[in-house]
Amino acid sequence: MKIGVIGGGQLARMMIPASINLGIELQVLAEAENSSAHLAATSVGDYRDMGTVLAFAENLDVITFDHEHVPQEILEALTARGKSVQPPASALALAQDKLWMRESLSKIGAPLPKWARVSDVAELDSFIQAVGGKAIVKTPIGGYDGKGVRVVGSASDASDWLSSSGSTGLLAEELVPFDREVSQLLARSTTGEIKFWPLVETVQREGICTLVRASQQGLFSEGVQNRATEIAQEIAEGIGLTGVLAVEMFQVGEELLVNELAMRPHNSGHWTIDGSVTSQFEQHLRAVAGLPLGSAEMTSSAVVMANIIGGKSEVFYSGNTGDVETEKQILGGALAKAPDAKIHIYGKDARKARKVGHVTVATESLPESERRAVAVAVALGAENLS
Amino acid sequence: MKIGVIGGGQLARMMIPASINLGIELQVLAEAENSSAHLAATSVGDYRDMGTVLAFAENLDVITFDHEHVPQEILEALTARGKSVQPPASALALAQDKLWMRESLSKIGAPLPKWARVSDVAELDSFIQAVGGKAIVKTPIGGYDGKGVRVVGSASDASDWLSSSGSTGLLAEELVPFDREVSQLLARSTTGEIKFWPLVETVQREGICTLVRASQQGLFSEGVQNRATEIAQEIAEGIGLTGVLAVEMFQVGEELLVNELAMRPHNSGHWTIDGSVTSQFEQHLRAVAGLPLGSAEMTSSAVVMANIIGGKSEVFYSGNTGDVETEKQILGGALAKAPDAKIHIYGKDARKARKVGHVTVATESLPESERRAVAVAVALGAENLS
Repeated sequence: MKIGVIGGGQLARMMIPASINLGIELQVLAEAENSSAHLAATSVGDYRDMGTVLAFAENLDVITFDHEHVPQEILEALTARGKSVQPPASALALAQDKLWMRESLSKIGAPLPKWARVSDVAELDSFIQAVGGKAIVKTPIGGYDGKGVRVVGSASDASDWLSSSGSTGLLAEELVPFDREVSQLLARSTTGEIKFWPLVETVQREGICTLVRASQQGLFSEGVQNRATEIAQEIAEGIGLTGVLAVEMFQVGEELLVNELAMRPHNSGHWTIDGSVTSQFEQHLRAVAGLPLGSAEMTSSAVVMANIIGGKSEVFYSGNTGDVETEKQILGGALAKAPDAKIHIYGKDARKARKVGHVTVATESLPESERRAVAVAVALGAENLS
Repeated sequence: MKIGVIGGGQLARMMIPASINLGIELQVLAEAENSSAHLAATSVGDYRDMGTVLAFAENLDVITFDHEHVPQEILEALTARGKSVQPPASALALAQDKLWMRESLSKIGAPLPKWARVSDVAELDSFIQAVGGKAIVKTPIGGYDGKGVRVVGSASDASDWLSSSGSTGLLAEELVPFDREVSQLLARSTTGEIKFWPLVETVQREGICTLVRASQQGLFSEGVQNRATEIAQEIAEGIGLTGVLAVEMFQVGEELLVNELAMRPHNSGHWTIDGSVTSQFEQHLRAVAGLPLGSAEMTSSAVVMANIIGGKSEVFYSGNTGDVETEKQILGGALAKAPDAKIHIYGKDARKARKVGHVTVATESLPESERRAVAVAVALGAENLS
């Protein structure tokens, strides 16, 4: 079976081990040579170019994604040619336009922060007043990792974005006074089968995820866990999603409000590689191929994943370096800090504010897992944790 | 860091996920196009050809192996050129010649079955008498998976081998009345650091391993477990081994006798991918690169690995097939039998008596893990289990 992945980032890279195990031939359309997923890259080209994508997809059984940015007209052309596009174009549309996502989720009845489409200063100022003097403004298209997101106290703080947004407008949301941020991950097969991993807590710094905590020992009340799977299932079925879905939510007391959706394996699910029976990457491949889903049970009681933002350039690089001894020294020093740490290096050049890898540790205790994961990540140059 | 693997079989294939995680650039010298490890194959050629191997090794930091058959003169030429060859040529020599292995292990003081070098009918018949009327005869070079091994009741049963073995002779061994066969796996780094996985029980049929059982719950007495690690450590240090070593032994009561050695990741350690913190493949890469070793603790209490010998041709193939729906049906039917089964497909064509994949299941109970692993393997066409 041949599955094509559009996009050659770390998500495509982490699908490779799963494809090797399952005997699936993974083919990647990468943006550039030396991409994270270069090992499986069969084409290099622009995913916004119709001819490039159609040629790439020619002999593939299923098309799926490393990111959600493939233009709708290309997704529709693939579908029209009889290709199995998973998740389907109509679901991906929500991830491509935050305003459309908010409208669709409202229709489904998912719990949301107060939000509005604002097209001018008056509308934005009125919204800001209505939610207590401060709001979040988001450009509907193209933002990620804190980019395209701004906290504003008055419409003048977003006048540049307002003037370029035209009639589409911007998404304005209330600032939710959350207790913590959480993420519910699920996979839904083309057959309709669904599996949920446990709800996890995510910790962000400057809009970028820094830590994810998963536990079998009462990290969440049963009510909150049940509500999270209920919300995620309603969304997945409501939008016709296939593959992995991450529903990022705010927890306020026992209540949950949907913040963002990701329609692909997601950073909040990287812990599943080393901490659950079936990783989100294997589950994604099984789901988009229409195979039965695997168990999403945890294999340890307390798992913490620490992102590495920045990173030491001797360890994090996309091509070849000459200084193997320094690389060994840094990598070895990090590995020596915790024999149970699982290191994941994405094959990307170290750069400020860039995710270049992660570390997962599974023990019997969340603080202990976190202490070890952070120690290893810091030794590898995680600027977000030091 | 660039590690080269000579040989493109399933062991090289299963090193790929570990190399992706660790950010190690793995380069494989494969015997043919469409090898198991083709994803990482940078060269295709004959490992017995000096020029081919030297060219392959040119820019690599470490050379290691998928098999033990690279000729000594090539290993020595690599070493003479300053390449880090792991395990070293002197250790691999033991795996290449069973008579030399027996002699070396005798010197180290490892417990062995009664054995002798026999060069003619008289010597063999005399040995057979001395060990009770039946013996095992092995060709010293080239045997595997039951090939090159024969049970004999008189020298005439091996007269063909005797006449072609010349002055080197054959290895004759007593038939050990063992209670079970076991395997002690360890990794030894170039720094001298050693980690042991728990002793496992192996089940063979017609000379091919069919099942491996690993347990945290008293599968072996403490005495036997301790004796196994002691023997394996003495051997590893005695022969200067680096990387993963499998010491296959016979258990007779509380006693252990060394049967075979494998100086690379081994079938009896495939369960570690899904059942221990650090897989034998990651550990092998860490060991040959001189990095600190990872924890070899089990992540579940009872793990069983079932080999798939034979296999259904719609699922097990090396190239492309056309019938995706049949493939999905068979693979899906197998996966549906146990949501916690971890399937590993080697990318080899299905063929009688050939290992083409394996299935691992980890639960709280050995019989339950075994029942599920066998059910999935049989659904995939394991002729050895049905």
